[in-house]
Amino acid sequence: MQNRQIQIAELPTAELTPDHFKLVEADMPKAGDGEVLLKVILMSIDAANRSWMKGATYRAAVQAGDPMPTYAICEVVESNSPKISVGDIVAAEATWSDYIVAKGHRVEKLPKVETLSHLMSVYGIAGKTAYHGLMSIGNPVAGETVLVSAAAGSVGGYVGQIAKALGCRVVGIAGGPEKCKWVEDEMGFDACIDYREAGLSKALAAACPNGVDVYFDNVGGKILESSLNFMNEKGRVVCCGAISQYDTDNPTGPRNLPGVIVVKRLKMEGFIVMDFAHNDAKCVRAMQHWVGTGQIKVTEDIVEGLENAPQALIGLLAGDNKGKRLVRVAADPS
Amino acid sequence: MQNRQIQIAELPTAELTPDHFKLVEADMPKAGDGEVLLKVILMSIDAANRSWMKGATYRAAVQAGDPMPTYAICEVVESNSPKISVGDIVAAEATWSDYIVAKGHRVEKLPKVETLSHLMSVYGIAGKTAYHGLMSIGNPVAGETVLVSAAAGSVGGYVGQIAKALGCRVVGIAGGPEKCKWVEDEMGFDACIDYREAGLSKALAAACPNGVDVYFDNVGGKILESSLNFMNEKGRVVCCGAISQYDTDNPTGPRNLPGVIVVKRLKMEGFIVMDFAHNDAKCVRAMQHWVGTGQIKVTEDIVEGLENAPQALIGLLAGDNKGKRLVRVAADPS
Repeated sequence: MQNRQIQIAELPTAELTPDHFKLVEADMPKAGDGEVLLKVILMSIDAANRSWMKGATYRAAVQAGDPMPTYAICEVVESNSPKISVGDIVAAEATWSDYIVAKGHRVEKLPKVETLSHLMSVYGIAGKTAYHGLMSIGNPVAGETVLVSAAAGSVGGYVGQIAKALGCRVVGIAGGPEKCKWVEDEMGFDACIDYREAGLSKALAAACPNGVDVYFDNVGGKILESSLNFMNEKGRVVCCGAISQYDTDNPTGPRNLPGVIVVKRLKMEGFIVMDFAHNDAKCVRAMQHWVGTGQIKVTEDIVEGLENAPQALIGLLAGDNKGKRLVRVAADPS
Repeated sequence: MQNRQIQIAELPTAELTPDHFKLVEADMPKAGDGEVLLKVILMSIDAANRSWMKGATYRAAVQAGDPMPTYAICEVVESNSPKISVGDIVAAEATWSDYIVAKGHRVEKLPKVETLSHLMSVYGIAGKTAYHGLMSIGNPVAGETVLVSAAAGSVGGYVGQIAKALGCRVVGIAGGPEKCKWVEDEMGFDACIDYREAGLSKALAAACPNGVDVYFDNVGGKILESSLNFMNEKGRVVCCGAISQYDTDNPTGPRNLPGVIVVKRLKMEGFIVMDFAHNDAKCVRAMQHWVGTGQIKVTEDIVEGLENAPQALIGLLAGDNKGKRLVRVAADPS
């Protein structure tokens, strides 16, 4: 059994390129006392991967020579942990590898489902991030307008679909006419604005005639700045990420913030999906309901092969995905 | 009886100067049906005056030719309103004038107190802004660290004194060594940092060894940016104003916002003191308690004479006041 691993060759100082990674043949890891040997099946590719390369965040910084960390769905191949059995499907803090070893008490047994990828998209990190951020910070009410950036991304599509199910007007922002059409036609948004076209402010004014009550921000930077101008009084800005700011050495803040946050009594609040783990069961129950009624479509963008993980991340940062991006390292067990 | 009035001669596009104002002899206004004629005694000078000159805020924009609007304490000279009597002391939306006319139902009767200025400082807009913003948005708890910018300003001193009374470590930011000494010695802050000296970040690190749990922001701009770096997880930023940004044509946003708001799960929220009017009685009761125990000192900075109002505002924007700035137009009635 070989164990391929993708390591950080060099930390990026500006834009991420394939040269920042190297594929190595690593030793097969050995499960010690209380540990399990896991075969990686699916890896979650997230903008957060890039931010971990910028220094300490909510986890320790990733260093040159480290394998890239990732959330993964894995099959248990060996177990020295009493509560975990060979053949179990688990979620784990893994790395970009074929095989990893983890502490038995640090992995989470997953329910047996037909399609494992759903546990990373609609019922996993993407769906949970959308649900918790929107419901706990955004608090949208029927009739309000919800604006979502990176609307074709892993989280954005779920945010908009949940807000539609709640009775809101939903406007997306995405890059390029093809993605915008997909957001409107497939995700059912009322409108989707192409930020690559000139006239973002004019387009926001046209698409949000009653202003914006909740802005779910996945991008930061200039789109955040423009969106703040359209917020209604007592509007809520859900700060989920800032993909436009991770892959640059020249970040920008919303210059209009001081002018609007007081006058409009805005609330801006950041969160991490794990903060709301105590509500995960409620979230999954709600998502299952909306999938059942057809109000939420499951969107996934699966790249095949461990060796393609660097390009999958680089492409994600450039916005080439539609829906939750995953890398498949091995087939679902039959 | 003459009625002097200070009007906006020209709207500023950058820094405010005395040339943006003109003193005129206006006609004595006449109280119509349901109206009252008021003699202005004290006017509140606020950074917000400057922001009203930048366009529509929570009130309509001020235009060239308008008298400058102001909150004022006035004595009723004539009344055509059944509920208001000659001799009553009232709070009113006034202008920079000796006399104004107001609708009887728009003025608020004030209690008879020995020192009318206290109704604008500790028991008025300054004290209420400090109390409501700190208590309702900041929610500080004993043992936490509260950081306050414009600590020698009208609001900042009360914020710090309330937080001290609650058992917090309180750190101020002010301009110049003399003000910083006053904030520490007179206002009782644990430390006060002079932002005009180099090394703000180093000074913040030294003064806030346990990080910052609540940042009460009166200034925006670079001080906000630096302070965000020291916020603890789940920290609260009370957005009360952005005095550094009002008197400029080149506003700056916190460039580090996207990097910190998500990772640290920060909440930033703006407010206007009137939003919490339903809690004013509770606020005044608490402030009276702390004034009684000596935990809150009343700070006022009274400029004499209507004709000095422009300089009083220009000076406020440059930070030359210590405590709540007022302009006295007439003596308290005996």
